Amino acid sequence: MKPQRMGILYPGAMGISIAASAQNNGHQVYWASEGRSSATRERAAKFGLHDTGTLAALSAECSIVVSVCPPHAAEDVANKVLTCGFNGIFVDANAISPERTIRIGQMMAEAGVSFVDGGIIGEPAWKPNTTCLYLAGLRAADIAACFSAGPLATQVLGATIGKASALKMCFAAYTKGTVALLSAILATAESLGVRDALLQQWKHDDPNFAENVYKRVRAVTAKAWRFSGEMEEISSTFRDAGLPGEFHAAAAIIYRRLAQFKDSGTPPPIEEVLGALLQTVNVSSR
Amino acid sequence: MKPQRMGILYPGAMGISIAASAQNNGHQVYWASEGRSSATRERAAKFGLHDTGTLAALSAECSIVVSVCPPHAAEDVANKVLTCGFNGIFVDANAISPERTIRIGQMMAEAGVSFVDGGIIGEPAWKPNTTCLYLAGLRAADIAACFSAGPLATQVLGATIGKASALKMCFAAYTKGTVALLSAILATAESLGVRDALLQQWKHDDPNFAENVYKRVRAVTAKAWRFSGEMEEISSTFRDAGLPGEFHAAAAIIYRRLAQFKDSGTPPPIEEVLGALLQTVNVSSR
Repeated sequence: MKPQRMGILYPGAMGISIAASAQNNGHQVYWASEGRSSATRERAAKFGLHDTGTLAALSAECSIVVSVCPPHAAEDVANKVLTCGFNGIFVDANAISPERTIRIGQMMAEAGVSFVDGGIIGEPAWKPNTTCLYLAGLRAADIAACFSAGPLATQVLGATIGKASALKMCFAAYTKGTVALLSAILATAESLGVRDALLQQWKHDDPNFAENVYKRVRAVTAKAWRFSGEMEEISSTFRDAGLPGEFHAAAAIIYRRLAQFKDSGTPPPIEEVLGALLQTVNVSSR
Repeated sequence: MKPQRMGILYPGAMGISIAASAQNNGHQVYWASEGRSSATRERAAKFGLHDTGTLAALSAECSIVVSVCPPHAAEDVANKVLTCGFNGIFVDANAISPERTIRIGQMMAEAGVSFVDGGIIGEPAWKPNTTCLYLAGLRAADIAACFSAGPLATQVLGATIGKASALKMCFAAYTKGTVALLSAILATAESLGVRDALLQQWKHDDPNFAENVYKRVRAVTAKAWRFSGEMEEISSTFRDAGLPGEFHAAAAIIYRRLAQFKDSGTPPPIEEVLGALLQTVNVSSR
């Protein structure tokens, strides 16, 4: 695809890697600094993103806008871009339910904006073959073409809006759902005085399992604040599909209890994590 | 421990292996055939268990009674044994919540029966070092001594009733909870038309994962009918500990939808499993 002006809302840890992949493909990347944190400003400056200041200026400047934000903010971001009179291709790459994606897409279509449903699987895209942006919609192939030189991989799932979001939901349902489940299990075992016995049994069955559980549970705490919204989107996705939404309703509770560890540099000791998970009990039993 | 007369209620796939381990330690094993299936009768006969006919006769004959039954039946079995005037050591080895275990234990103590809390982790105990009967209670060591020659392993978790059940709940929360979660994910992906894409992404991350998921989901169907009760016990255990009970409330729903595959010899094809999981949707959309 010939060089485009692409807006990235907002260049967080994932968004900046997508911006870098777009630049690697010869596109110019813009962002809107109004109201953003100094950490985001520094990140955007470091990668040479063009700052339009306001969302209105970005919406006027760019032919493509990619939304990469916490799930709870996705619909609001889409609405704001529409309000600014944007009329290019809007890519929602957020971890939101197919239903919500379809709703945003309809709103965009009614306003004459081309809508592409996106779902990112993997860590921030700095290495080839690690991170895939799944895409669905009539203009999905145009967006895929923007990233053909990598390192972000893309895959088009067809024209039906919702499929990329559905895949993201189903994938994260296991990865993030499992870590939430393990967190709840450790906290329950701690509360009932059988944590050591559980670890011993796990070690008996698989020498590395217990240690990996601790690592995974500790490592997830820094991102937990935004995983709770994602779990609610997955819960809603499951319910819409006729399956029980309770797994991820529970996962959302777990991640909310861990939200206090937002942006903590080093993972907290497991005892601190368990303390946070059991906080409701501690408070009520005082 | 010197040879005892031990009653096993009821010798199913797991119970018969515990009976065999007791026999291997020189104990005489009894059971009560009244009202049991022909499959159970054949199993008990094959292993030379003594049939007392009624529960009353078994309760009079045995110094130790071990309850190994589906979780929903555990409290009823304990009550019936008490009603028969049993006055030895009663071991509840079922997958029930610590709260329910404690309640049964108190009832037993009030009637002068020694109560031991048990939790079995592993498949039926035919090989050494594969299956452990965890035990808690004042007489836990006496029960462990009954199995010292194996192949059933035992481990005493102390005198506090509820610890063996707690460990069993926390352990099964992961193993059975995860298979239920994977079942729900596959059915959701199927319903949303992204099952193949999900399998491809899973295979990208781990070549064996997708195939193992199918195997685990298909293999669990034959036992699903009794796992739903176990998931409800785990849900209740989590709630009592101050953690969300919804993970396993959802797992109970999943296993109830799979109950139709009870005792199916060969695991059903994945399409049949998904059909059963999506049955509510299919019915309501007809």
